[in-house]
Amino acid sequence: MAVARSLRRNTTITYFLAALLLLTFLYFFLVDSTSLPSLPQSRQLLKSKDAASNPLSPPSLPFKKQDPNEVPPPPPVVHYRMNNVTTSSQPIENRESVLILTPLAKFYSQYWDNLLALSYPHDLISLGFIIPKGREGNEATRQLQDRITKTQAPSNKKHRFASITILRQDDEPPTAQSESERHALSHQKVRRAAMSRARNSLLFTTLGPTTSWVLWLDADVIETPPSLIQDLASHDKPIIVPNCMQRYWNKDKGAEDVRPYDFNSWQDSPTALGLAEKMGPDEILLEGYAEMATYRSLMAYMGEPTGDAKKIVDLDGVGGTALLVKAEVHRDGAMFPPFPFYHLIETEGFAKMARRLGWKSFGLPNFYVYHYNE
Amino acid sequence: MAVARSLRRNTTITYFLAALLLLTFLYFFLVDSTSLPSLPQSRQLLKSKDAASNPLSPPSLPFKKQDPNEVPPPPPVVHYRMNNVTTSSQPIENRESVLILTPLAKFYSQYWDNLLALSYPHDLISLGFIIPKGREGNEATRQLQDRITKTQAPSNKKHRFASITILRQDDEPPTAQSESERHALSHQKVRRAAMSRARNSLLFTTLGPTTSWVLWLDADVIETPPSLIQDLASHDKPIIVPNCMQRYWNKDKGAEDVRPYDFNSWQDSPTALGLAEKMGPDEILLEGYAEMATYRSLMAYMGEPTGDAKKIVDLDGVGGTALLVKAEVHRDGAMFPPFPFYHLIETEGFAKMARRLGWKSFGLPNFYVYHYNE
Repeated sequence: MAVARSLRRNTTITYFLAALLLLTFLYFFLVDSTSLPSLPQSRQLLKSKDAASNPLSPPSLPFKKQDPNEVPPPPPVVHYRMNNVTTSSQPIENRESVLILTPLAKFYSQYWDNLLALSYPHDLISLGFIIPKGREGNEATRQLQDRITKTQAPSNKKHRFASITILRQDDEPPTAQSESERHALSHQKVRRAAMSRARNSLLFTTLGPTTSWVLWLDADVIETPPSLIQDLASHDKPIIVPNCMQRYWNKDKGAEDVRPYDFNSWQDSPTALGLAEKMGPDEILLEGYAEMATYRSLMAYMGEPTGDAKKIVDLDGVGGTALLVKAEVHRDGAMFPPFPFYHLIETEGFAKMARRLGWKSFGLPNFYVYHYNE
Repeated sequence: MAVARSLRRNTTITYFLAALLLLTFLYFFLVDSTSLPSLPQSRQLLKSKDAASNPLSPPSLPFKKQDPNEVPPPPPVVHYRMNNVTTSSQPIENRESVLILTPLAKFYSQYWDNLLALSYPHDLISLGFIIPKGREGNEATRQLQDRITKTQAPSNKKHRFASITILRQDDEPPTAQSESERHALSHQKVRRAAMSRARNSLLFTTLGPTTSWVLWLDADVIETPPSLIQDLASHDKPIIVPNCMQRYWNKDKGAEDVRPYDFNSWQDSPTALGLAEKMGPDEILLEGYAEMATYRSLMAYMGEPTGDAKKIVDLDGVGGTALLVKAEVHRDGAMFPPFPFYHLIETEGFAKMARRLGWKSFGLPNFYVYHYNE
């Protein structure tokens, strides 16, 4: 009898503990990661900076398809005080989140290596990729996925990123992607319009309420200082761009050398403005083509051999190979015009549009990042 | 002895059950709502339409601040095939998600009542609000929160929405919000530029990869057909706008009557285009002011007493009181210009920008929604 009673009591304890654990589980599952819409809790959320990093942000449709037999989790309500999302010259100290956005047509392992070497805390970095449809895109996706699998492994605490989003476009790139074809003047308008749409899709889809900075980083930028993000952010500018160069083998010198690569960062010139004035409404100005000499001051040529890496210049157009933007500039509406905007498109049009919104662009002529050499 | 052994065995069972439940809890908490970045699983995600409704989409920073002593959840990787996000004339059948965006300066309970009465499945609807800083904004937030608390209660399965995001702006509205002040021509440019920025902030922050449609719905639109979303979507147009009217007391008739309210939906006229041509680069055209007769064809006056609600007209400018937009139009880059864009701003500038991106606007002159009458 004593044994039976003891068994019964212990069974009761078992059930009690089981129920307690189940309740704990339900509490965490239903309550902790969402927020029940009760006024006091929401008020608390309003005051707390942590509210901004709610796992459900932003909730385009945050729930998995619900099993009708399952108790669905309560829908969340998330408050964001936009003035709590700072963008400052001390982004690490202020735990500011950075969204790195990369339109990816071809995967370079050196790009990923360089990304991994960034010294900005990786738990504050989200990555977003947009990859075109088609065979080349499939191959790039596969290679990217291979590296992601290793980087994001639960054991790889040091290097893994806060999150990664991969968008696959529903169309293929408009023209072939070889280096020479890509730069042909005749292809530039079509190519850069398509690139603008890809950038916009990526931006509109991944920018969240907690993002402080957006770093645009092209898939073929394979070498930057590890402190790229904090160095650029330290200037506390709405839009800032480093000088994108390219390493190559200089046959004359018989040695490795460096040459300017990105000509889209420039200060305007009366010639360029005059050219624009005479253009039809749908024509665009492009930089770096002998057929269309603009006499703009190109940041590509402003680098000094022993120049101060912190030297800063005003810019009217920016390139997008590497480009740090305060998220509020984008939130105000600054995007990459695929159509001629003041006769400018893509990143150059973006700088002009940001200017119309009251935001200035800046460049660092002696701060270098390097583009892949095909 | 027998009792002691039995107790011990039962303790073992207790611990076993506790451990099992803890593991179940950890499984759901760590694995189920995120996705471990293993290749086969990602491949599966690529094929599955469900991938798009991952609870972590889009991941601006999906994790709560991690306790260093706690095992952190593995960072997620989410793939989205954009061509799986359809926008069709049968949005309910295709389970297309709708993001309803409302800039909110003042809360009307009729607005919320009307929202609740929408017959589009609420589990496919996400709501986004942006509310200005200051006393009025605080009051609107409180009233909104009161209604949300009831609507989103776990017991209210029928009416609650998939998710709600509330953004509090870091600035106050530029001018007072009384009806007469708001419509004074001199205030329009400043007011509508501020409204554009609010719309852009809300849009850039809440649009996710799974969103099919964006319904812009002003906070003072208090009456629409319950089938508003599916009725507008049934036309399968990139941008479509109903006719926004206002109920009022007609003293002459001694009866309730209806009058046009929103004059921003129009077809262009040679006069308006001529006016724009003569304007300085920063001047804007506005509709509905005697000082600036544009002779545009206004949809407000196209309604017929017994007209077909499905009658559709082309538009060059649209109003934003109620406005259904395919998400891909926004993703392409179409936003609300706060600066003169072809001498147009806000929703009218949006229609023009969308047109530059290749998307046309349409209106339904005999399909009515109603604006609050102050």
